[in-house]
Amino acid sequence: MLSFALFGCGRIGKMHADNLASHPKAQLTAVYDVNEAAAAEVAAKHGCRAARTVDEIMAASDIDAVMIASSTDTHVQLLTAAAKAGKAILCEKPIDLDIARVEACKKEIAGTEVPVMIGFNRRFDPSFAAVKKSMDAGEIGDIRQVIVTSRDPDLASLEYLKVSGGIFRDMTIHDFDMARFLLPEEPVEVSAMASVMVDKAVGEIGDHDTAVIIMRTAGGHQAIINNCRRAVYGYDQRIEVLGATGMLQANNRRATTIERWSKSRTAAQDPLLWFFIERYKEAYIAEIDAFIKSLETGVPCSPGFEDGRKALLLANAAYESLKTGRTVAVGA
Amino acid sequence: MLSFALFGCGRIGKMHADNLASHPKAQLTAVYDVNEAAAAEVAAKHGCRAARTVDEIMAASDIDAVMIASSTDTHVQLLTAAAKAGKAILCEKPIDLDIARVEACKKEIAGTEVPVMIGFNRRFDPSFAAVKKSMDAGEIGDIRQVIVTSRDPDLASLEYLKVSGGIFRDMTIHDFDMARFLLPEEPVEVSAMASVMVDKAVGEIGDHDTAVIIMRTAGGHQAIINNCRRAVYGYDQRIEVLGATGMLQANNRRATTIERWSKSRTAAQDPLLWFFIERYKEAYIAEIDAFIKSLETGVPCSPGFEDGRKALLLANAAYESLKTGRTVAVGA
Amino acid sequence: MLSFALFGCGRIGKMHADNLASHPKAQLTAVYDVNEAAAAEVAAKHGCRAARTVDEIMAASDIDAVMIASSTDTHVQLLTAAAKAGKAILCEKPIDLDIARVEACKKEIAGTEVPVMIGFNRRFDPSFAAVKKSMDAGEIGDIRQVIVTSRDPDLASLEYLKVSGGIFRDMTIHDFDMARFLLPEEPVEVSAMASVMVDKAVGEIGDHDTAVIIMRTAGGHQAIINNCRRAVYGYDQRIEVLGATGMLQANNRRATTIERWSKSRTAAQDPLLWFFIERYKEAYIAEIDAFIKSLETGVPCSPGFEDGRKALLLANAAYESLKTGRTVAVGA
Amino acid sequence: MLSFALFGCGRIGKMHADNLASHPKAQLTAVYDVNEAAAAEVAAKHGCRAARTVDEIMAASDIDAVMIASSTDTHVQLLTAAAKAGKAILCEKPIDLDIARVEACKKEIAGTEVPVMIGFNRRFDPSFAAVKKSMDAGEIGDIRQVIVTSRDPDLASLEYLKVSGGIFRDMTIHDFDMARFLLPEEPVEVSAMASVMVDKAVGEIGDHDTAVIIMRTAGGHQAIINNCRRAVYGYDQRIEVLGATGMLQANNRRATTIERWSKSRTAAQDPLLWFFIERYKEAYIAEIDAFIKSLETGVPCSPGFEDGRKALLLANAAYESLKTGRTVAVGA
Repeated sequence: MLSFALFGCGRIGKMHADNLASHPKAQLTAVYDVNEAAAAEVAAKHGCRAARTVDEIMAASDIDAVMIASSTDTHVQLLTAAAKAGKAILCEKPIDLDIARVEACKKEIAGTEVPVMIGFNRRFDPSFAAVKKSMDAGEIGDIRQVIVTSRDPDLASLEYLKVSGGIFRDMTIHDFDMARFLLPEEPVEVSAMASVMVDKAVGEIGDHDTAVIIMRTAGGHQAIINNCRRAVYGYDQRIEVLGATGMLQANNRRATTIERWSKSRTAAQDPLLWFFIERYKEAYIAEIDAFIKSLETGVPCSPGFEDGRKALLLANAAYESLKTGRTVAVGA
Repeated sequence: MLSFALFGCGRIGKMHADNLASHPKAQLTAVYDVNEAAAAEVAAKHGCRAARTVDEIMAASDIDAVMIASSTDTHVQLLTAAAKAGKAILCEKPIDLDIARVEACKKEIAGTEVPVMIGFNRRFDPSFAAVKKSMDAGEIGDIRQVIVTSRDPDLASLEYLKVSGGIFRDMTIHDFDMARFLLPEEPVEVSAMASVMVDKAVGEIGDHDTAVIIMRTAGGHQAIINNCRRAVYGYDQRIEVLGATGMLQANNRRATTIERWSKSRTAAQDPLLWFFIERYKEAYIAEIDAFIKSLETGVPCSPGFEDGRKALLLANAAYESLKTGRTVAVGA
Repeated sequence: MLSFALFGCGRIGKMHADNLASHPKAQLTAVYDVNEAAAAEVAAKHGCRAARTVDEIMAASDIDAVMIASSTDTHVQLLTAAAKAGKAILCEKPIDLDIARVEACKKEIAGTEVPVMIGFNRRFDPSFAAVKKSMDAGEIGDIRQVIVTSRDPDLASLEYLKVSGGIFRDMTIHDFDMARFLLPEEPVEVSAMASVMVDKAVGEIGDHDTAVIIMRTAGGHQAIINNCRRAVYGYDQRIEVLGATGMLQANNRRATTIERWSKSRTAAQDPLLWFFIERYKEAYIAEIDAFIKSLETGVPCSPGFEDGRKALLLANAAYESLKTGRTVAVGA
Repeated sequence: MLSFALFGCGRIGKMHADNLASHPKAQLTAVYDVNEAAAAEVAAKHGCRAARTVDEIMAASDIDAVMIASSTDTHVQLLTAAAKAGKAILCEKPIDLDIARVEACKKEIAGTEVPVMIGFNRRFDPSFAAVKKSMDAGEIGDIRQVIVTSRDPDLASLEYLKVSGGIFRDMTIHDFDMARFLLPEEPVEVSAMASVMVDKAVGEIGDHDTAVIIMRTAGGHQAIINNCRRAVYGYDQRIEVLGATGMLQANNRRATTIERWSKSRTAAQDPLLWFFIERYKEAYIAEIDAFIKSLETGVPCSPGFEDGRKALLLANAAYESLKTGRTVAVGA
């Protein structure tokens, strides 16, 4: 049984609390949120304690691991403290929006050797994971193109967007990770285009809502990402991988297998699952399971800290491409 | 919190135990199995007691409801005893293979007024339930034809088949219930054909493995059922309903949304989920939830005892049709 | 080059005229219709002559073959005359609505040995033909169940229905032929149910608009047919064949491969092709091609006269089942 | 009736000859090919004359229009001569591989005002055309992203590739046209990546076989193209358009609607139609029809000369992007 503390009792924190509570090998021992009422509510639901300070958790001997699901600007501080306290860490993406802080954090925790997993939950989606597994089994031969379609069902609030770090660091970061997960080697070149198509207000705060990115590895393997902050038909999450001997596609998910037929609708399917909480429900559960298995077996967590750092490097390269009109080289 | 006792700790009993344990409003308090080791194992897993006798459970004041998942020949006795003990009852299908025993049981429990639900789990499959919901909302108008495709992935053992009551009472019984669930009124006529196509041994024990049944209601609404004990491509479970203003189809389920493409496979999907435990996982969970909601709200359980009885009447009518070569009238 | 005369210049006759005109090895030489204006129009379009009498065509030495697409009640007379005149015959289904007349015709033409093909066009549908080809190649092993879904997009006029011979002889006749085409041996038992669900006026003329039929061969192979005279979502034409080692499905056809997505429609496909002229366009062309190939090679036409006769026997058996409430045995 | 001369009697020329011969308003009057035997063969098949020189055709008073389907390097010369001779022109893509020659040709024919259509046949594919029509009808609102997937089933011969002008001018040129066809305004920026993944020999002749391209219009509308010279599963031709109020997808085509199910294949569809001749059969026919309709109505041909020129400009911009590592601006 692995004893967890949870940082952050917002929407995603609550989901993680439920998932930890349901996992046969995990136990939710403590929660913390700057919003004490939120923490109290989750603590009450799961019969665990609400810590009054971060330090209280870091110092607690009955806590083995932390789930960091608080706001992005607190990740580095919590991650560093937990690493120094010897707690295993499962940290929501991104590590931070500022690569300098991420690099600094990397140095700070370098000696600690605690297991760190970054919450790129999509790697654990059953369909996406099955694509990876088939690729690894050689089912489609050498990889030529990875295509990630990733569109949100609707625009987040401007309040959220203002502190989000911009579309590439907030939204595309998942897709950069997915491309890295599926490509046989690291991307070395990034070219990006981005527009304001959904709402002018997004442009007024200096952000974009619609984007396309292409990437290339040294060996010529290519990746395409397409993003939009609003797809009225739903949360569109697909991957496609073209290989030398075949192609794999992982398509969207629906609540049921219904097809509806009428004078005006032919074989219409059920709507897509609304958003990440519903669409990636199994993925979030599998992510925790993978984290626990890593701790049990000693196999390094994956995706780990480096994956979080590299996805951010790609996001930054995309911004540089946007600014300079150049295809940008990405280093290590 | 509803306190349950579970009868039967075989494969399906274990699944129910897990589902009861996971339900936020249910608590597994006691289990019973003639195989004491099996009972002990489930009791240990869920931290509850293993009763030594049936009576012990019936007499226990800390038990509100029973889940009957023991062998079919024990259902009537347990159901009757539980009803007399005032326990709410969730009983696996079928009530019994012998309509005379079912009728007798009906009389025996007539005065008890305990809630009884029969485990026709497929009504709770999210896709099938969504079809019903759409129909009830008038989405396809007056119903004309209900088509139930129901094929097992492989033949059960001969040992099982010998005591199964025959394909209509063991396998088709689910489809009779599904047809009744979807038709706007009771079938009044049944015509059936059955063959031995999968394995001659099935014929040697007097059973069939491949069947087609048509039914009609007084108002002319029609139903078709097709069955086979072995579909090599998997557990094939589909329904289709044609109405005056549209059609609804509920298709098979797969573990992932993958499509595989190669020189020899175009858009091949993931295999079907293997068998009922996997295919109807959500349905079994939803069934328990519906049972608990019935108890909470006082709304009669559905499907109830009468649904179990009527499905058996249809199975018997199908056998009579087979024997006589007639379309058989079904009474109440 | 095979020189054709066409009997019947109505909707389906015009289509056949176009198809004959486009076939590289066929030539439309003469047309006949009791409606002289209709004949003149088709003759003008295709630059051929409009015969004034049937005899004129039968006597013409420049005509090798006849396409009989006139009203059903003229088929037997034309077929007999053409056979005696030594013309090869492609006759629209059905041969006749009255089995006595069909049997008489069979005797009349017995000695002539002219090639006769009956226009069960669906056998030539690329998808249905591919199913048959795959079956014949052993792709799904021994056949267990053949399922034919056949629904019209809308009710024909009452005028038409009054002389149609009833749903089984007019509409289901195609499906009886399809079942025979796909089953490994002749059906020996038929059980049918039929209702008036679409329009009471259909019942008032003694016909039905919604039907289900099951059939069985001596070896236990089963077939299911479901029919409705109105499926608001379109002309629904599907077949499914379950075999020992696999299943084959041939689905509906659409004009394009479009999928439409919006707030209210998820992956909605193009409407089904409206009716038989559009849906079976390729089949009608392939039918003529197969007829010409038969004449060239001397391989007997298929489907032939016997196929026309046997489909009618099944339709009659279905009516007897309806009347008697029995499963009806079908002889040769 | 429009009288055509055909230049080029190779594979695609033969197909055009057949399509012209089948069109009710077109007549194939003369053919020309430097390979006299090829010309003679097509002339014999269609009962028309084989011209001995180009001039003979240009001078012929009985020829209204020319179909230019000869090798790319002859297009400009034939197009110019035909324009000066007052013949309407349907010219296979590309106009030329060299933009300087295209610009010169543009000037040369500027005064002639003969109708010129460039053979971007894919615009006439029923599914792609239906996407455009739905977009124009406002079905998905303002356009955000156009995605063109375009992969060949197999590598062309090195001999062909050596004179093809490179992947962007030979293969992607169709996709540049499709992107222009679907985007609401002209692309102003292009960024491209290309690799040698299929066969090293392609790299040795300075070409690429796998490519991704992104483009942007002034208004921020985006396009993505992905190409590969070999997709083992077949000729993969899809488009997807994301709009403000919906999405449209046009998918691949198959010969039949069959789905195959077995132990190892779940719902596998028919293989994709092999290559452009099969896949775009209807499109080539519709293209000729559109050309003839333009001549009849006086509505300018579309796609016209400018569309041919602009697609080449985009291809050139893609090469510049590849060479410079920059996002390249495209002028008029």
